[in-house]
Amino acid sequence: MKKSLPLPKGFSAAGISAGIKKKKKDMALIVSDVSAETAAVFTTNQIKASPVKWDLKVVEHDGARAIVMNSGNANACNGEQGMADAEAMAALAAGKLGIPPLDVFVCSTGTIGKPLPMDKIAGGIELLFDAVSPDGGMDAAEAMMTTDLVSKTVTVEIDLDGKPVRITGLAKGSGMIEPNMATMLAFILTDAAIEKHTLQCALRVAADMSFNRITVDGDRSTNDTVICLANGQAGNELITQSSKHWKLFFQTLEKVMFDLAMMIVKDGEGATRVITVKVTGAASGGEAEEAARAVANSMLNKTAWAGKRPNWGRIMDAIGYSYAQVQENKVDIDYDDVPAVRKGMAAGTPEEELVAAVSKEAFTININLNLGGGSSVVYTCNFTEDYVRINVE
Amino acid sequence: MKKSLPLPKGFSAAGISAGIKKKKKDMALIVSDVSAETAAVFTTNQIKASPVKWDLKVVEHDGARAIVMNSGNANACNGEQGMADAEAMAALAAGKLGIPPLDVFVCSTGTIGKPLPMDKIAGGIELLFDAVSPDGGMDAAEAMMTTDLVSKTVTVEIDLDGKPVRITGLAKGSGMIEPNMATMLAFILTDAAIEKHTLQCALRVAADMSFNRITVDGDRSTNDTVICLANGQAGNELITQSSKHWKLFFQTLEKVMFDLAMMIVKDGEGATRVITVKVTGAASGGEAEEAARAVANSMLNKTAWAGKRPNWGRIMDAIGYSYAQVQENKVDIDYDDVPAVRKGMAAGTPEEELVAAVSKEAFTININLNLGGGSSVVYTCNFTEDYVRINVE
Repeated sequence: MKKSLPLPKGFSAAGISAGIKKKKKDMALIVSDVSAETAAVFTTNQIKASPVKWDLKVVEHDGARAIVMNSGNANACNGEQGMADAEAMAALAAGKLGIPPLDVFVCSTGTIGKPLPMDKIAGGIELLFDAVSPDGGMDAAEAMMTTDLVSKTVTVEIDLDGKPVRITGLAKGSGMIEPNMATMLAFILTDAAIEKHTLQCALRVAADMSFNRITVDGDRSTNDTVICLANGQAGNELITQSSKHWKLFFQTLEKVMFDLAMMIVKDGEGATRVITVKVTGAASGGEAEEAARAVANSMLNKTAWAGKRPNWGRIMDAIGYSYAQVQENKVDIDYDDVPAVRKGMAAGTPEEELVAAVSKEAFTININLNLGGGSSVVYTCNFTEDYVRINVE
Repeated sequence: MKKSLPLPKGFSAAGISAGIKKKKKDMALIVSDVSAETAAVFTTNQIKASPVKWDLKVVEHDGARAIVMNSGNANACNGEQGMADAEAMAALAAGKLGIPPLDVFVCSTGTIGKPLPMDKIAGGIELLFDAVSPDGGMDAAEAMMTTDLVSKTVTVEIDLDGKPVRITGLAKGSGMIEPNMATMLAFILTDAAIEKHTLQCALRVAADMSFNRITVDGDRSTNDTVICLANGQAGNELITQSSKHWKLFFQTLEKVMFDLAMMIVKDGEGATRVITVKVTGAASGGEAEEAARAVANSMLNKTAWAGKRPNWGRIMDAIGYSYAQVQENKVDIDYDDVPAVRKGMAAGTPEEELVAAVSKEAFTININLNLGGGSSVVYTCNFTEDYVRINVE
């Protein structure tokens, strides 16, 4: 039996095959029964895909009702035609709902620099509105997939003074993944009633603590987008940053986004294991992050982890060329709680214990620079020949 | 018959197996009959191997006679014992020559964090002095190899007012290669008579135009070293920065180092082709370099090139997330002279022509940001499954 995805109250969804990709679902639709508060974060890449530019306008104006997305084509680097196509895609969906185009978010993911096949998009939108239902969540998640091996969804329910509130997340992404977003799309739906600026603040902070902590290959794409719709259908008391339910809502939102982020890094192209890189004792938080990223993005480290080899010298090397200040004779490194390096030198732990530590399904590399109070954490994956196979093809 | 390497006048060399690696040559020696002027450039990594720290002292004092090196062990992250071992290695070689230890450069390359096997090093130094001869250049180049598939040597001879002057280079390196050096060692020998500061200036500028232009995997190692010895045995008039032969000497030095750098990038771990990334029209030279590096180090680009796919979208993506200022609708990209992108969009060249352009043994990606006068060039290689195989093992 097919897994189902419980959507928050007042949301419906669909995922169908519009023929953009061969034989696979390639378009998704999410609709709220009523206008929802919106928040969104986008790629920091200077080259932004047309749908990202469109969505920047949508999120600036009040409320939205729908998200329409396609995979197989990124609608990036298509100039004025790309912008016209993104707007037309929104207008087609808006027409079906009888709302203004600016009430519809548009997302595209796939190949860069090919015109969007608007005939297929138009046909797909017809099919989506035929199929849309409260049970369509899993179909939508499937249609979001590109090189993903699994669809990625999370639903959590919380109780706010007797009112059940649900937060549901759908995401895609596996290559071009790096802190500050990637070819990554995530839609967060909730029936919570929440004030717009509170929602925006929550989404931005939660994104920094989830999607912006993961890295697969250090590439940031042109299309990364996280959109949140909050339609208020749960009937809870309006959440603001000073209300008592703010904390629980934020923590739940963060959990949903963190879980989605971990699903993405676990499904990294060719990856088999998740590795957590924690840096403490840096001169500043920013330097801790630079050091953690250098380690997490080093091909020499990622291939060593694929081979289940401790190879802490490659970690020393990476922090040494990072922008973080490092004093060789102060550095301590542990794999989980197994000492690998003390004061910049081998800690003396027998090789077989180090090998065992890095052979686990998941493990944490704890790096203490012993210089100050800055700390940071980044989640990454190992790097196998399969990544090359996937990206050569 | 074995290829021979003509050394400059007054130099001899040897390469032998000391048992640090299994059955392969793993130690090399280069000796000048007389004290030579010295110049050197080292890794910018904050974590420097012990031999690098030793060599910094050698190059600061006047003159040197020898270089002794081992592969199979980097003598990095070994603390005080590492420094003592590097100095002992210099002292052992110096003892054989009856000179002070500070007249001997020491280089090590290989695994980080394992103590140098000093018994094998001592035995190896005995064997090296038994073997050293003017014909030993190729043996020395072989002993420098780690994951290199081929040894890397260049010899060029120039005529300075009737005096033949020779510049000979020996290098190793294939992984951990990125502008600003890598697990890369290069020894440049010349019988030219040249003033010390002139030599230092020439070496630094030539390194910026050769070894610092290549990138294999974006990693910079703890041991990168380029050492130049100039023993004056050619009998030419002393070269200074104001002398008439300065320009020819510098150009020849640069050619030797550039040829060695190209050999290294061509022998990049798992690589099969050399790709030149040229950026023009950047807001500054530094920004041009940032953009070129982002493209050259992007795994998505390197795997696309391995698959002989144009995939210019991945180039747009990489310049977009680089630190260089980019305006999407001004970017032009050509593969050699085949237009791929005009004003940020597909140039309209048929796909098969683009595929043909990136299928060549070597090709240049010309990126014009059309913003200013900054330009830069970086040389890189494609990325295949073999890199992963090599580094997993």
